[in-house]
Amino acid sequence: MIKAAAEEFDRHGYDATSVARISAVAGLSIGAVAFHFPSKAQLADAVQQEGRSVTLAALSRLATDSTPPLRLVIDLTLELARLMEEEPSVRSAIRLARERPDAESWSDAWLPMVRGLLDRAYEDGQLRTDTLPADVTMLVEHLTSGAEAYLRRRMGSHPAFESAVAQLKRVWYLALVGVSADEALLLGRPRPTTGPGREQQAGSGPDPATGVKPVG
Amino acid sequence: MIKAAAEEFDRHGYDATSVARISAVAGLSIGAVAFHFPSKAQLADAVQQEGRSVTLAALSRLATDSTPPLRLVIDLTLELARLMEEEPSVRSAIRLARERPDAESWSDAWLPMVRGLLDRAYEDGQLRTDTLPADVTMLVEHLTSGAEAYLRRRMGSHPAFESAVAQLKRVWYLALVGVSADEALLLGRPRPTTGPGREQQAGSGPDPATGVKPVG
Repeated sequence: MIKAAAEEFDRHGYDATSVARISAVAGLSIGAVAFHFPSKAQLADAVQQEGRSVTLAALSRLATDSTPPLRLVIDLTLELARLMEEEPSVRSAIRLARERPDAESWSDAWLPMVRGLLDRAYEDGQLRTDTLPADVTMLVEHLTSGAEAYLRRRMGSHPAFESAVAQLKRVWYLALVGVSADEALLLGRPRPTTGPGREQQAGSGPDPATGVKPVG
Repeated sequence: MIKAAAEEFDRHGYDATSVARISAVAGLSIGAVAFHFPSKAQLADAVQQEGRSVTLAALSRLATDSTPPLRLVIDLTLELARLMEEEPSVRSAIRLARERPDAESWSDAWLPMVRGLLDRAYEDGQLRTDTLPADVTMLVEHLTSGAEAYLRRRMGSHPAFESAVAQLKRVWYLALVGVSADEALLLGRPRPTTGPGREQQAGSGPDPATGVKPVG
């Protein structure tokens, strides 16, 4: 019943899914469903709970003491993308959290784990000194949402597209090494042409190619 | 009428919004609305068109020949986040594109512009040599989706949170300079402790802290 509900909520959203429809898909009477879940809200709560449990179980299988924490954060987000692709309860939990803002959100289930790992990564010297664990946590949230949005677009109209996991790996690589050329320049790799502002030194100031400063 | 429709679709989604409800909010008869838009789908198409037009108009005001292209890409994505915060037609266009996968998507309106700028940024040497414009375009898509997801979460339950624009600025800074400490180490900034794999040289291979390689 939870499985049928997850699939219906995932496909049609909270408002457009009825208990009658879920009952029909599950092959049960409305009365049997209502016996366990007197309201659609309770059924949605149960699906969101299931999505969070599946997620936490999968992540805890990955977490080991021997993996460096930054590496583990990347592995965890790739696992989240895989779950989004393969687990209707996870997709459904994400969609329902978006459509029912008062319910417990999917990301609240795993964000504390990511934040703790990033604190350790910072202490271990895996992050740049000017990079705060809170900001990297925010980056992880953005990338995870991006993977989900990509997946929804792809499910709609482009079935032959690349997997969200493969795409997220490429995006993570960029975020790890940085997109901007300036540091590469300092490492002595010459560029075919130079843009404006190349004479500045890289460091904790604004990025010379772009003028973007860390905020706050 | 488009404005009322945008607000309703933004708040309740495509399936849960009725033409009757939009008519009531707009203060018009159902007949008057139906005269212009015989179906809900046509009304949603018009709202999505409006969201794309508002977006393109705002972006074209920013685009100038004098701004370096990578900087302009960042400015454009921050403007997209501002539009999401302030323009119901833009939020509605994004939500409707997610819920109506066959309709023209919001991001298709501006992604070609971003891709063109990133191609120029690469030619101008603003991107790292091992960074492909297609991958940075993908990063931009992920970050933009992340900003929208953050905004939806915040609208639901946390009205006092930071603006999506301020948050995106911080995330962009990380993506520009890179999260991983290894390049900073090569630049001679000592770290309090060293993690495993520090003896490797950075370069086009896997990130030594994480083992993540560029895919494809």
